[in-house]
Amino acid sequence: MRLAVVGVGLIGGSFALALKQAKAVSHVVGVGRNPANLKLARERGIIDSVAADAAAATRGADLVLIATPVAQFAGIFRELAGSLDAKTLVTDGGSTKRDVIAAARKALGKNVSRFVPAHPIAGAEKSGAAAAKADLFRDRRVVLTPLEENAKDSISTIEAAWAACGAKVSRMNAEEHDAVLAAVSHLPHLLAFALVHEVAQRKNSEQLFSFAAGGFRDFTRIASSHPEMWRDICVANRDRLLDEVSRFSKKMDKIKSLLDRPAELEKLFAEARAARDEWIRSS
Amino acid sequence: MRLAVVGVGLIGGSFALALKQAKAVSHVVGVGRNPANLKLARERGIIDSVAADAAAATRGADLVLIATPVAQFAGIFRELAGSLDAKTLVTDGGSTKRDVIAAARKALGKNVSRFVPAHPIAGAEKSGAAAAKADLFRDRRVVLTPLEENAKDSISTIEAAWAACGAKVSRMNAEEHDAVLAAVSHLPHLLAFALVHEVAQRKNSEQLFSFAAGGFRDFTRIASSHPEMWRDICVANRDRLLDEVSRFSKKMDKIKSLLDRPAELEKLFAEARAARDEWIRSS
Repeated sequence: MRLAVVGVGLIGGSFALALKQAKAVSHVVGVGRNPANLKLARERGIIDSVAADAAAATRGADLVLIATPVAQFAGIFRELAGSLDAKTLVTDGGSTKRDVIAAARKALGKNVSRFVPAHPIAGAEKSGAAAAKADLFRDRRVVLTPLEENAKDSISTIEAAWAACGAKVSRMNAEEHDAVLAAVSHLPHLLAFALVHEVAQRKNSEQLFSFAAGGFRDFTRIASSHPEMWRDICVANRDRLLDEVSRFSKKMDKIKSLLDRPAELEKLFAEARAARDEWIRSS
Repeated sequence: MRLAVVGVGLIGGSFALALKQAKAVSHVVGVGRNPANLKLARERGIIDSVAADAAAATRGADLVLIATPVAQFAGIFRELAGSLDAKTLVTDGGSTKRDVIAAARKALGKNVSRFVPAHPIAGAEKSGAAAAKADLFRDRRVVLTPLEENAKDSISTIEAAWAACGAKVSRMNAEEHDAVLAAVSHLPHLLAFALVHEVAQRKNSEQLFSFAAGGFRDFTRIASSHPEMWRDICVANRDRLLDEVSRFSKKMDKIKSLLDRPAELEKLFAEARAARDEWIRSS
């Protein structure tokens, strides 16, 4: 089985390594913007050859994974549209799904049936082929958001590929996916970027950072994430993200008002702690 | 040397264990609201005896550490005021300093000279004597906010006690301390509590939590912190905290406006990442 990976970074590289380890693919061809990254991917045995563009990589591939920042998907779908043959299936690693699906429909026409969208929830603040590892998806969730155009067999094949990476695969519709991820992933990233940026721009930022401790370090870990990837996610999921920012802002107003009512403030903190502890216990 | 610990939790218990390990104290007497916690502290060898109240514990002590949530400090200072003798020094583990100092001045009068305020920046989301450990303060910062009434020798003695715990001790004035900690500790805690509470109160909270991943876990770790302790911190440092909430809110407004200007959004994310990565490298 021949795999083409468009964007050989943390997600794309890990997918290739995992499927190689599972002996589910025999040859991996990689495409990317950064020659040094592709060279490293070859040296690490992530890919076996390099193609000039997505069209060339797709020719003869059984499976294509698109794993670039999501703003590049429209162009990539246009490139690979002419190279899809009857056996080729396409999946992706994009963190947003409505925009990715719209781009696929526009570029692929009725061949959109060959695209089974996926989102592996396995990010990290590391990026690039250097960060790829065969076990990145082990026991992590991968959400498929299948299209009504997808054949059952196509969905099963893509599901099996992600499962072969060790992932727990589930299904959701794209609308719901983007709303859920806005709340538990996109908003926290925005808050973390905002906090670090605020501290970094103060006149006394050096002093502030020097008294920041473990709580600040963990809270802001996701502010070390890939800026272009997160730019694209925020722009693509703008409406849902703004909903979440607005709800969060109302919650903060509520909390501000509770600074005058300590018993209620403590109750809110206790409820938050209990909910988090329960989540940690059960996950 | 005899040590009295008022509030034998994570901070108080760890201080006792560290000074015992450094052979800087020979007897530790503990005071607290929770008999089961005090029993555990005795069983773990954190304290050697239990006193009925802060007054009794202070009698004959060379050093007193107050390590309860900060709203209890006023009452504790009143209790121990009559038991201070010429040799007794008092320090504390409170996360806010202006309120603690005001309470000490009011209760102790001219004996406030015997109180050298301190803040060990070594929190954790665990609490109680069960969480105490001798190395909690090793290589962590402890900020002293000495009073003009303190004798030089008193400050040196308290500095030496914290240093004996392995801490990196520095000095700051109380105003500055409360402003700095509002930015890098109190605000992030409030944001984390707010996010978890918001998610927990949604109709689909179970679904939301089930798709939350490592980023959410780390971002919200501090939302598992002690609700009463954090209630007291937020109320005591209310003015500085509101300043920070307001600055943060302006930053979020700015970021919202950048959802229309992707290049600037990416630049802000990249600046935040660079600042955080530099902090991690240098700390």
